[in-house]
Amino acid sequence: MPRPAMTFWFEFASTYSYLSVMRLPAMARAAGVSVRWRPFLLGPIFAAQGWSTSPFTLYPAKGAYMWRDMARRCAELGLDFARPAQFPANGLLAARVAQVALTHPRGETFCQTVFGAQFAEARDIADPVVIADCAARTGLPADMIEIARSDTNKAALRATTDAAAQQGLFGAPSFTIGDELFWGDDRLEAALAHAQRI
Amino acid sequence: MPRPAMTFWFEFASTYSYLSVMRLPAMARAAGVSVRWRPFLLGPIFAAQGWSTSPFTLYPAKGAYMWRDMARRCAELGLDFARPAQFPANGLLAARVAQVALTHPRGETFCQTVFGAQFAEARDIADPVVIADCAARTGLPADMIEIARSDTNKAALRATTDAAAQQGLFGAPSFTIGDELFWGDDRLEAALAHAQRI
Repeated sequence: MPRPAMTFWFEFASTYSYLSVMRLPAMARAAGVSVRWRPFLLGPIFAAQGWSTSPFTLYPAKGAYMWRDMARRCAELGLDFARPAQFPANGLLAARVAQVALTHPRGETFCQTVFGAQFAEARDIADPVVIADCAARTGLPADMIEIARSDTNKAALRATTDAAAQQGLFGAPSFTIGDELFWGDDRLEAALAHAQRI
Repeated sequence: MPRPAMTFWFEFASTYSYLSVMRLPAMARAAGVSVRWRPFLLGPIFAAQGWSTSPFTLYPAKGAYMWRDMARRCAELGLDFARPAQFPANGLLAARVAQVALTHPRGETFCQTVFGAQFAEARDIADPVVIADCAARTGLPADMIEIARSDTNKAALRATTDAAAQQGLFGAPSFTIGDELFWGDDRLEAALAHAQRI
């Protein structure tokens, strides 16, 4: 019998995606749920809502709260947390490389390493040196970054972002099981429970 | 020794405030936390963010998700749920009456009755007949609605809304313990735990 399946949508610039990226592998294993990781870009989705950048930048009260909430949640979850100077980061290169990395057995570890570089070490993931360092630390083949820059891979990321919009996604992280959408790290448990039920 | 104290900020038009209004009394009692209920108006706070109405109306994908999420959360919590035709409701009269009602021992019950009328019976709480019916069902004194319409009470609601903005509130429900802000029904447990710790 196939295992229950869920799709995990995340954006590398998204603070709350950090929480899910770190929590998900162990939780999915425990729940017996198979998860497809799909990095996508929030930029085009925010632009369609009329936003030129993150709502946490556009709405300062919401942004101030988010940083406090992240610090508290990370402390509760035992995750290191350091606020990067640049927010939101440009997560384009990270997403392109992750898309290739996720075809490799250490792909999820690469994603965790990139999120850790950004939100535990406060490094700028737009810097190709940081991404190359994360790939090296994860033990990924050195040609992966070149493959990530191929036209085929760029088109695949655009297609994933279009698919996210078509699924009704408006933020990250999000989780889908068929047409059922769960938004936010706070719904990770509910999404896994739903995946187990069907 | 005084009991730990928390302030609960809510808006009568807010769907997720329904969840907290229904859950809070039993949870606060169990936690031994004393709670001050402060109904306020999100309208002026949204207007300061440049929004003319609820973000769930301004952003259709977010709105569609919210209704689905509410239906799921209510089912999980064992709460009745019916989507009212009018959203967001004008919660001005409800907030004014609640402010007076909360000086009465059955004030929290009145708030629960109004939220139930809106989100379990799909009635329009802008209708004074609905509010009067809720007051009667709660067993509140009949003159309460007249007192609610006094200039003193109107000014008090404006002052509460100003105080909410000054505390950095940007949505509802919210919970504060001193300067520490928790936003959303999903943070009710964390807010009570924080109140217990200090």
